[in-house]
Amino acid sequence: MPQPKLTRFSVAPLASLTRRLADVASGRTAPDLVITGARVLSTYTDRILPERELWIAGGRIAATKPAGAHRALAHAPGAVYDARGGILAPGLVDPHIHIESSMVTACAYAEAALLNGTTTIFCDSHEIGNVMDVAGVEAMLEDARAAPLSIFLTVPSTVPATSPELETAGGDLTAEKIGALFDRWPEAVALGEKMDFVQVTMGDERSHAILAAALSRGKPVCGHIYGREFVAAYAASGVTDTHEAIDRDIADDLLDAGVWIFLRGGPPTTPWHSLPEAIKTITELGASNKRVCVCTDDRDADDLMAFGMDWVVREAIAAGLSREAAWAMGSLHPATRYARDGEIGALGGGRRADVILLNDAMEVDNTWYGGELVVEGRKITPLLDAALSERYVYPKAAYATVKVSGRPALTPPPPKVPVVANALRTALPGILVHHERVSLPAFESWDGVLAEHGLCFVAVIERHGLSGGESRVAHGLLKDFGLASGAVASSVGHDSHNVIVAGTNEADMQLALATLVEAQGGVCVVDQGIVKAFVALPIAGLLSDKRVTEVAEETRVLKRVWEEAGCTIPYMGFNLIPLSVIPEIRITDKGLVLVPGMEIVPPFEPQAQAAE
Amino acid sequence: MPQPKLTRFSVAPLASLTRRLADVASGRTAPDLVITGARVLSTYTDRILPERELWIAGGRIAATKPAGAHRALAHAPGAVYDARGGILAPGLVDPHIHIESSMVTACAYAEAALLNGTTTIFCDSHEIGNVMDVAGVEAMLEDARAAPLSIFLTVPSTVPATSPELETAGGDLTAEKIGALFDRWPEAVALGEKMDFVQVTMGDERSHAILAAALSRGKPVCGHIYGREFVAAYAASGVTDTHEAIDRDIADDLLDAGVWIFLRGGPPTTPWHSLPEAIKTITELGASNKRVCVCTDDRDADDLMAFGMDWVVREAIAAGLSREAAWAMGSLHPATRYARDGEIGALGGGRRADVILLNDAMEVDNTWYGGELVVEGRKITPLLDAALSERYVYPKAAYATVKVSGRPALTPPPPKVPVVANALRTALPGILVHHERVSLPAFESWDGVLAEHGLCFVAVIERHGLSGGESRVAHGLLKDFGLASGAVASSVGHDSHNVIVAGTNEADMQLALATLVEAQGGVCVVDQGIVKAFVALPIAGLLSDKRVTEVAEETRVLKRVWEEAGCTIPYMGFNLIPLSVIPEIRITDKGLVLVPGMEIVPPFEPQAQAAE
Repeated sequence: MPQPKLTRFSVAPLASLTRRLADVASGRTAPDLVITGARVLSTYTDRILPERELWIAGGRIAATKPAGAHRALAHAPGAVYDARGGILAPGLVDPHIHIESSMVTACAYAEAALLNGTTTIFCDSHEIGNVMDVAGVEAMLEDARAAPLSIFLTVPSTVPATSPELETAGGDLTAEKIGALFDRWPEAVALGEKMDFVQVTMGDERSHAILAAALSRGKPVCGHIYGREFVAAYAASGVTDTHEAIDRDIADDLLDAGVWIFLRGGPPTTPWHSLPEAIKTITELGASNKRVCVCTDDRDADDLMAFGMDWVVREAIAAGLSREAAWAMGSLHPATRYARDGEIGALGGGRRADVILLNDAMEVDNTWYGGELVVEGRKITPLLDAALSERYVYPKAAYATVKVSGRPALTPPPPKVPVVANALRTALPGILVHHERVSLPAFESWDGVLAEHGLCFVAVIERHGLSGGESRVAHGLLKDFGLASGAVASSVGHDSHNVIVAGTNEADMQLALATLVEAQGGVCVVDQGIVKAFVALPIAGLLSDKRVTEVAEETRVLKRVWEEAGCTIPYMGFNLIPLSVIPEIRITDKGLVLVPGMEIVPPFEPQAQAAE
Repeated sequence: MPQPKLTRFSVAPLASLTRRLADVASGRTAPDLVITGARVLSTYTDRILPERELWIAGGRIAATKPAGAHRALAHAPGAVYDARGGILAPGLVDPHIHIESSMVTACAYAEAALLNGTTTIFCDSHEIGNVMDVAGVEAMLEDARAAPLSIFLTVPSTVPATSPELETAGGDLTAEKIGALFDRWPEAVALGEKMDFVQVTMGDERSHAILAAALSRGKPVCGHIYGREFVAAYAASGVTDTHEAIDRDIADDLLDAGVWIFLRGGPPTTPWHSLPEAIKTITELGASNKRVCVCTDDRDADDLMAFGMDWVVREAIAAGLSREAAWAMGSLHPATRYARDGEIGALGGGRRADVILLNDAMEVDNTWYGGELVVEGRKITPLLDAALSERYVYPKAAYATVKVSGRPALTPPPPKVPVVANALRTALPGILVHHERVSLPAFESWDGVLAEHGLCFVAVIERHGLSGGESRVAHGLLKDFGLASGAVASSVGHDSHNVIVAGTNEADMQLALATLVEAQGGVCVVDQGIVKAFVALPIAGLLSDKRVTEVAEETRVLKRVWEEAGCTIPYMGFNLIPLSVIPEIRITDKGLVLVPGMEIVPPFEPQAQAAE
């Protein structure tokens, strides 16, 4: 009989296993596996219990016993594993993550997660929803079901991010569609981060209809909020978590308002590493940690290994928490937030045998997923390798989403009169884009003008096939982006994921665009007619269909070439340039958008008129 | 327009109120009520926040603001209440209670709960289920829906308590019936305490089918367990709470096995007050309190006031916990255990405005239930008084459950030969009943014999109309019960609730029985042909249909007369004499049962034979 593929469903529901587990725990039947010679981290009591062993049967925990207890059994266990004094802890549970950020499929993501001691994730497939609407969300749910990882969905709540007046998206997730997703997919356990927090607090009708679609079904609502002034109204609207608490005081306000805090750890060079500040609600202001979790949110593929959930837990320890409390914030607390603590988040009786073997530095040596050893000595086992080689194949429609028609010009004609350009000035860390008004004289050719002013071209090309004829393009100028020659392009242009191209000349920009269209998605660097680096993202223009290790390597190369090309912000920041909800100025396929006024301005204004 | 009755449903679902609450929290619309000049106890962070006010709208919390903030509103609040510096805390949530123990209906129970600062209870209608099967459980659910209190059901899981061979019960709650209850009643949120813990750990088929009925529907299972040796197998069977942890060590084992602990507080003169010992898992062994709650379990009606949930919280404080942590164990923690923390257990945005005003000794001054002031200055308000006067009326069948046929003899004939009597020796605190073998000579009449040996008669009369002819009676002898003359009787005879009568003579015993049959239920004391005290319990033979204050007063009188009659154990202990799951000897309608062997023995054995 062939071994069935390892997935979440490899472990039978507890309801069908209680008699067997009672038999094993009582010593009447032998366990399948005993992991002995261990300490056990109890996330229930925040203590490390000495000299224990775990009895596992049917992929679930039957009992925690004194080390060596299995030797008194009448029947020998199926296998005995010696943990050599290490710490056994429950698999980590990431309460908020976007798989698409790592540009891999759910099946591929599992590899990195398991190496990091993560056995369950709650993902928000917001990006693929923006490209493919319900079909994209459902394809990713099928992907998730096929993965050797427990993946639950927080249903994308804010698609599109703004409105059709400001940008063209491929998705429009209405309250009705969201309700239908909840009804069809039991793993859709919550509403994903409700990013339009200003609209929510203002009582916007569509936003509240979407909240009602979740709340009326008993599904909790995840949040995303900045600004202490919005906390009360946001919480009153039924939002019960956020991962965006950027400092101690807003974290404190949110907790007392009834909002779970997911402390986000990110590579310290990025602006996403808000954990060290937000955790001060505990370490400085004395809040209990019981409604606090840790999460990763987003990771570049090449950062997945070094900055996983286990690393975030260690950052919480570095910030002053005990090892036990910090690990609980990455396991039992997220499980409790989603009311799944009867199944995951701890090594209690009847729970899934998602078990991590740690050293004293809380580094992951081994991972058992549903009782199966998938990582040993920091390497994946042949069992997991086999599971990862049989990844879900996305439907054909997912491979045909970069729908660019015609060959629109990507650079604007030179201004015939003196103008003020509404330029987009990029700066590290790459989130805010500043609005800079650059005075330009009239000239015949762009040659030399760009370099003189520290500018390059940028264009956003509508790619959802919704332009009605030649694809719509918006033109603009980037300032201080640093690209000396050539072009860079990405089909990951948040949140509508139109194609964004920046460059110093039309030819390289066209080549960059053509490269993405041909592959139906990707990120590339082009110079003088040559593609210097390219990560193909053929699934929805967002995801590679390769293993995570390959994508990580491709990403590393891309980043190096990207930097060599002179780009001053990383590609992830570049991908955010179309995100028309973050100040001060953005470019979408509809043009330049000033935020938060949400008005469209032309790229060039005659100087006299601009001065008025 | 007449005011609709105050119930759980008086507050609209959050899904329909988010826009209004966002408007109020943002200051665009006035709150219905502001409670100002207060400190606010945050059960999320275990802190008391100084100088705050609550804004309430639609019966829910819109916001917590700095005290006085409402004065800046453009529109005045509907009402402003000055808390005069008191502490505002969330309404208490009792995670495990049997309403029937207080011999009142759910509607009547609400009065005591609200006076004690309790606004939500999770009740297990195990007793009425044993009498009336599904019909009883459903009648009590209707009762609960009509009450001015939030009442959820943990579905009775162990009805009957033993088997038809050992006793006759009126209920037989199979896995199918339990599943149907879950499917019909959304407030059936968990499986009630699975009392047959030995059968569960032994893998009994019926027990595990019942567990599966709950687990397969995603409903958690509540427990009831003694003995550290059973903990692992019980937890492995999917049980995730218990209120029976009687000491530090078993509490500790249970927590680490994944079982929530409900620390039970009871009047200190009873054996139910296990909190002071079990809480040492926190205070001595360093366990986190995050999976620990407090509960009441059972209360005599007259103990409801002095020993409510608020008192149990204060006992936890007396045992060394902080005020904030202890209150959270009585509110947010139980709400979290049942995954209802988005609705109750704290004063977060959007939650029900179940608010308690406390003094610094954590005594309850006021209670707002869904934003309505129901207790003020430790007295119920006219609003609550009106709601309590319109109590649910049970169906006629509930008033006709003491189905005793014929006039069976309640005393056995005197032995014709020397015998050994298998007597039931009662002793304080009244839980265990000891098996005492009393040698008796042959005699013609019982006159004088009983007193000489410290004995009295006891009889259990089948009352579910299942005897097929004259009602079945079992005879026995009580030792050391202390009744000097007359008789006592009760239709509350755990768990099958047949009628139990004890007495010194047939006539008084018959009068006691007749009194109960005529009233269709109750507890009485009779002497020399006169009923000295009587609490009528006409609903299922278990519940009064009066207000709780009246039942409390009747209970006080009963207890005094009971004691004056010489009874050495309280009436609650007397009611447990038929409970054939507690050692050493019990009497049911089927005879004398030896526990734990579960064998039936005759009341008298010839001396020679007995000696063999």
